[in-house]
Formats: sequence, C-alpha cells, structure tokens
Amino acid sequence: MENRTATRGWNFKENKKLVSASGLTVRSVLNKLMSCVDPADTRPVIPLGHGDPSSFPCFRTTPIAEDAISDALHSATFNGYPSTVGILPARRAVAEYLSQDLPFNLSPDDIYLTIGCNQAIEVLLSALACPNSNILLPTPGFPYYEAWALFTHIEIRHFNLLPEKEWEVDLNAVESLADENTVAMVIINPGNPCGNIYTDQHLEKVAETARKLGILVIADEVYAHLAFGSKPFVPMGIFGSIAPVITLGSISKRWIVPGCRLGWLVTNDPNGILKEHGVIDSINGYLKISSDPPTFIQGAIPQILQKTKDDFFSKIVNMLREGADICYDRIKDVPCITCPSKPEGSMFVMVKLHLNLLKDIEDDLDFCLKLAKEESLIILPGVAVGLKNWLRITFACEPSYLEDGFQRLNSFYQRHAKKQ
Amino acid sequence: MENRTATRGWNFKENKKLVSASGLTVRSVLNKLMSCVDPADTRPVIPLGHGDPSSFPCFRTTPIAEDAISDALHSATFNGYPSTVGILPARRAVAEYLSQDLPFNLSPDDIYLTIGCNQAIEVLLSALACPNSNILLPTPGFPYYEAWALFTHIEIRHFNLLPEKEWEVDLNAVESLADENTVAMVIINPGNPCGNIYTDQHLEKVAETARKLGILVIADEVYAHLAFGSKPFVPMGIFGSIAPVITLGSISKRWIVPGCRLGWLVTNDPNGILKEHGVIDSINGYLKISSDPPTFIQGAIPQILQKTKDDFFSKIVNMLREGADICYDRIKDVPCITCPSKPEGSMFVMVKLHLNLLKDIEDDLDFCLKLAKEESLIILPGVAVGLKNWLRITFACEPSYLEDGFQRLNSFYQRHAKKQ
Ligand SMILES: Cc1ncc(COP(=O)(O)O)c(C=O)c1O
Ligand SMILES: Cc1ncc(COP(=O)(O)O)c(C=O)c1O
Repeated sequence: MENRTATRGWNFKENKKLVSASGLTVRSVLNKLMSCVDPADTRPVIPLGHGDPSSFPCFRTTPIAEDAISDALHSATFNGYPSTVGILPARRAVAEYLSQDLPFNLSPDDIYLTIGCNQAIEVLLSALACPNSNILLPTPGFPYYEAWALFTHIEIRHFNLLPEKEWEVDLNAVESLADENTVAMVIINPGNPCGNIYTDQHLEKVAETARKLGILVIADEVYAHLAFGSKPFVPMGIFGSIAPVITLGSISKRWIVPGCRLGWLVTNDPNGILKEHGVIDSINGYLKISSDPPTFIQGAIPQILQKTKDDFFSKIVNMLREGADICYDRIKDVPCITCPSKPEGSMFVMVKLHLNLLKDIEDDLDFCLKLAKEESLIILPGVAVGLKNWLRITFACEPSYLEDGFQRLNSFYQRHAKKQ
Repeated sequence: MENRTATRGWNFKENKKLVSASGLTVRSVLNKLMSCVDPADTRPVIPLGHGDPSSFPCFRTTPIAEDAISDALHSATFNGYPSTVGILPARRAVAEYLSQDLPFNLSPDDIYLTIGCNQAIEVLLSALACPNSNILLPTPGFPYYEAWALFTHIEIRHFNLLPEKEWEVDLNAVESLADENTVAMVIINPGNPCGNIYTDQHLEKVAETARKLGILVIADEVYAHLAFGSKPFVPMGIFGSIAPVITLGSISKRWIVPGCRLGWLVTNDPNGILKEHGVIDSINGYLKISSDPPTFIQGAIPQILQKTKDDFFSKIVNMLREGADICYDRIKDVPCITCPSKPEGSMFVMVKLHLNLLKDIEDDLDFCLKLAKEESLIILPGVAVGLKNWLRITFACEPSYLEDGFQRLNSFYQRHAKKQ
C-alpha cells in the first residue's frame, strides 16, 4: 500500500518526557516479567509480584460490597455526572468512617473522592507542583509518586527507610534534605514495599519534623487496617494539629476490590493551614479538570463502609497473617535471601538478595527475569521500588501457591548457587 | 484555638496555573449559575444548561446496560486491576462496534479505554504536549480542550465555526493559523455546542486540509449517532487514510449514562503514521501513569455494545428530535434571541443574543445569571464555550420542562425588554 505522506511532513512526534516518566511504574516492570514466562511451562504462574489477591477465591470481596454497588446502579439515581469533589452522601460516609479512629471529626468538606488511591496521588502532586517545589519521598517506596513528581516537574529528594529499625523514616536525612522549597514528605503506613507498621511515637516524630520544616505530611494509608503483628495501625491524621496531614486511601485493599477504582484524599488539618495557604484551592482546581469515579460506585460507598461486617475484615487480616508467617519461615530456607524484620502489615515483605552466593546472576532484575522464565514465578525486583539488589515478595496469596512459590524459588537457588 | 505555626513558616502555596486552567470548564460556570437560583422560588429548576438528561425518567438508560454491569460485577472475574489500555474483550467489542461504520476494520490495538470521553481528551492532549507544540481548536467549542491545552502547555489557536454555513469549519482560517509546530485540529461532530452534523464532503475537506498541514484530526464523536435531521452521522475515521484521525467517544450520551464514566480513544490510521511518529508510545506512556475505568464496567462493554436494541436508540433520537423541534419553534417567539440554523444533532443549539433589545443586561453572562436568579432557569452563556453574547440551550429534556422553560424565558424577556 502506498504510504501517503503529508505535503510538508507530519508535525507530531513522541513526547519524550512522558515516555520516560511512565517507565517508572511497577506495572511496567511486572509486564516485562510476565512477558518472560515460558509458554511451554505447564505449571500455573505464581504471582508474588503485585498487591492484588482478588483473583484468589479465598480473597473474594464481601457480597455486601457487590450488592451495594448493584443496588446503587439499579436505583437509577446515580446515572448522571457526579460533582467534581464527589457526591455528598459518599463524602459524608468516608468522613464518618475515618473519624472513628481520630481525636476530632472530619467533615464531608475534608473528603475528596478519587479514582483509587492512585488518582489521589495524581491530584495531590499536581496540586503541589509550583515552580521550584521539591518533595521528600521514601526509599524504598511506591514509584507512582516518582512518576507523577517527574511528570509535574516537582523535584524529588529521597530519604531512606531504615531496615535495621523496622523500616522507620530516617528523620535526620529528612531534616538535612529539606529547604524552603520543600512542600511535603510521603510516608506509607502500613508499608509498601516493606510490610512495616509505624508506632504512634514514630508518627508523632514525623509530624514534629514536618512542622519544624514547614511541610505537610502525605500519609498513604491505602493498606489501612491491614495490620496483623504486635503493633496496631494508627492513622497519621491524629497528628494533624501538629502539621497538616493529607491522608490518601481507598477501598482497593481492605475490601480486595482494586478493580472498583474508588479512593479518597482527606485533609486532616484542624487549624485550617492548607486552606489558608491555597492548597485546598489547588486541589479543587485539579479536580475540576480531572476524571471522576463513576457516580453509582460513589453511591454505594455509604453501604459499603457502614455495612461490612467485622468477620470479613478479620478473615482477610488472618489470611494475610498466615501468608506473612509462611513467607517469613520459608525465607529462612533460601540461603540467598534474608529478611531484616518480620512484616506486620500490608501485603509485602522486602528481602535482601545476596548475589555473592549466586554464580550467574547480575543483579535483582536479572534474578527476577530468570526466575520468571525458568520457574513461572513472579517476584518484584527491588530496583522497581528504589532498592537495588533487594526483592519485594507479596504474601497476599493462597497459602498453597505461596508454598509452591518458595519451592520453585529454592530450586532456582540450587541451580544458580555458587559451589562452596 | 491557638493556631500553631511552623518554625520557619509553611512552604506550600497555591498552584496559580492550575487554578486558572480549571476556571475554564462548563461545570464551573454551571455551578456559579446554580448558586444564583433563589431558594425562595418554589418552582423546580429547569436545567437547560448541561448535556445530561439522565435524571428525566423518559431518558432512563436501557436495562440491558444496567444488567450487563451488574452481571460483570457479580461474576467476580473483574475485581482485579485492569490493564493500562483496557481489558481485551472490551477493546475488541469497541473495535467491532465502530468498524461497522468504517471502510476498514479496527483492531483491538487501535482502542484505548478511558474514563469517559473527558479522560480521552486529557490523555491525548497530554500525549501531544511536546515543547512549542500548538493545537487548533474550534470557536465555539468544548472548553475542556482549552483547560487541558493550558495545563499541559500546548499553545491554543482558535478557528471559527461558521454560523451562516451550518457551523462548518472555516478551513481558510485553519490553513492560515497552522505552522510547523501545529500538531492537531479538533472537530466535534455531532456538534457541541452548535447541534451541527457535518456532511461527508466537509469531513473529507477537513482531512485533506490536515494532510496538507501535516497534522492529525481529533474527532470528538461523543454524540455519535445522535442525529435527527436530514444529514446522517458520518464518522471522521473513514478518512483516516488521508490524514491520521483519532476518534474520541463514550457510552455517556448514546446510552444516557454519563455517570458510568466509560469512554475510548481510537486510532483510525491505516497507514501507521501515528506509530511511526511516536504518538502511540506517548499515548501508552500517559495511560501507564493515569487512572483506569473500573474493571467490571469494562467487563460489561461487550454486552452493552452488542445487546442494546435499536428501539432504545430510536426512542432517544426521537425524543431529541422532538426537543429540538420545540426549541426551534419557541425560539422564534422570544424576540431577543435568534437561531442561525436548526439543530440536527447532539443535545444543543446556539442562539444569538440581541442585547440592543434589552434594557438592563450587560452581556450573555449577566443574562444567564439574572435568568437563574429570577426564573430558576439555567442556560449556558456563550462565553463559557467561547462565543460571547450567544447562548447555548439544551433540548435534551422532558418536553413539558422545555415548554415551561421557554415561558419563563419569555417572561424574563418581557421584564427586561427595552421600551420601543
Ligand atoms: C502505596 C500504594 N499507594 C497507592 C496505591 C494505589 O491504590 P489504588 O488501587 O487505591 O489506586 C497502591 C497500590 O498498590 C499502593 O501500594
Ligand atoms: C464535546 C464533548 N466532548 C466530551 C465530553 C465528555 O463526555 P464524557 O461524559 O464521555 O466524559 C462532552 C460532555 O459533555 C462533550 O460535550
């Protein structure tokens, strides 16, 4: 076929900035790993790479959630466009749900509904992106923050989480990184990728540090309440009177419905500092031009938040505890990986990879690519979350899959182990 | 209460660029009008300002759509995260649906699912935003394009639609505005705000012009098939071999379910020019960092597109024709407005406002603000769509409301008419 060309050539071209910013997501790395799996391997793929156990029957969501959505849909009162911040009954329900764990009451005006917690990240980083601003992000972390910071031109400065201190924030590093253009720091609790739960003492220190530096705290609590160790989950919002806290969350993880794409951005700011400094106007501004969660899913939120039974929540937390226990035990059997601290929350654990015990593995990415190819086992290389030569293992998975996964990991190790 | 302040003052501030870009949306103007309505007026508000008739029982969507979504939801196979471009069965169904009206077959790889047509606009403008690029937008038009062009730093150049030629594109203006940094032009057909339907001859000329200029055509067909005059709806994609065409659409309008937020971006480019020039990589890049439509709504798309009966579609088109007829007739009874051409598609008509016949009205915005306040009647001022001292009237409304609306418009006119 004749390739018709424009008279003066075509003007449009690749958006290089965008293509490079988007290379940073966990999804991109997982897609790459999946494409390495050998189609001739008849065993099922074992997916220990991502935080989405929804495909396992034992992790199926509660019928309460499905029925609430389907009732809202059939009511025909939620077919129209939603308001930009989210419909009022849903915002009120989120305010009540979150206020249960806070020393003050949130108002519906503190709540902005988003398309999952991911869009809450997008909205907030877009709102904060003034010229020259910079943001403090954790290493290891959740690379979606890096992608949006890059895309919206916020300078990124990384502080470490300390594996020897149960992945607490290195607050000295935070203080030395910040300057007068620093607008915010991010903490993820319960932690992805580290499986940590922060004590209220540590969270209070985070707030005090933020106040000292004049920055706000972005508290990513998408794994809220998924805590199964010795420490309880404490929301960062309780320290909102020390420094303004913006909490990001969703129903994706606690209800195991990431496909619903329903989340929130919440201001915990009893002193009204965010409003005074124009952050609320900026958030509202971005919401006016960005996409909204479907109206009928918003319409189902009051039912979902109010009616879900405790036994569903406990079942999920117990499954995660069991998964974490299996994982922590089996890790000890694989010489080339070690785990600095037992996970107490979320769906993940970080383990250190000891390349010196392996004969033909270059780094963590090489390890994971070969593992996918040879064993149809997907594990996320640490480099995808900012920590080279570590691995992130998901334990939110049916126990038999986990056991099988660790057997495959062991065979892989045996095959690649250096002779002593 | 003591207002605790940070040691060095708070660093974060308003994002001025964002706040100004977001002032441009139709929603912002409509919110302003709604806030003027007198709460003491006991009559119902008559909403002739927006393109969302879903709250009128006669415009209720087909049960096929609601059942398809609820089946997908209860199947528990769509609870997980979707892929960034959309799930394959849904993309395949959209490809088949749109190919029915094209001289070639679209492949699922030409289809990208988005959160309504609005997110398709966001994705495409973000993908096209290379340094120095500019885009040609229609006046009057749909200000969401202006908002995203501003936000992503694409320079905007406006060409006129010609009221005396049934709102055809002024192609001479297009040619003289374009330069080597022009990447695309936008056409909206069926038209918002003008209610126009373009002939295939005119669309072919648009494609030839685009080819000459080396630009792509963005065809906003969110109102596809809502045509009820003498001309049939013709998709721009049929001219994709002359110049690359990217079609944007959704189920919002034809199925009257804007609250579902399900749309698409479609490449009609049999010569593969978009891929060759990096536009496909840019679109994929943005989709990796942006939000996705909920998985179970995607899962319902094959059923919705394949199973909806023709009688539902005809019922909706007949209601729109009836509304357009009433509107066109009643406009003649109101001396201060005139209509250059009878609407043949979409849900809107543009009328010219004759301020010289009114004694105390400053401009179109003043007209609409006072109308909202005095008559609880909402009509969009033309300035919101780029055409000062015109009005956009929605006829997608229950007939009795339309009749009532025009009575109120007439009383308003009588009260504000200049004495002859
Ligand atoms: C730390 C963190 N934040 C945000 C998200 C996004 O969650 P959602 O599914 O609600 O968009 C995830 C998902 O894995 C996550 O791990
Ligand atoms: C011209 C035009 N494009 C796009 C849209 C957005 O449609 P959707 O509801 O699919 O996001 C609208 C909505 O009114 C519109 O009028």
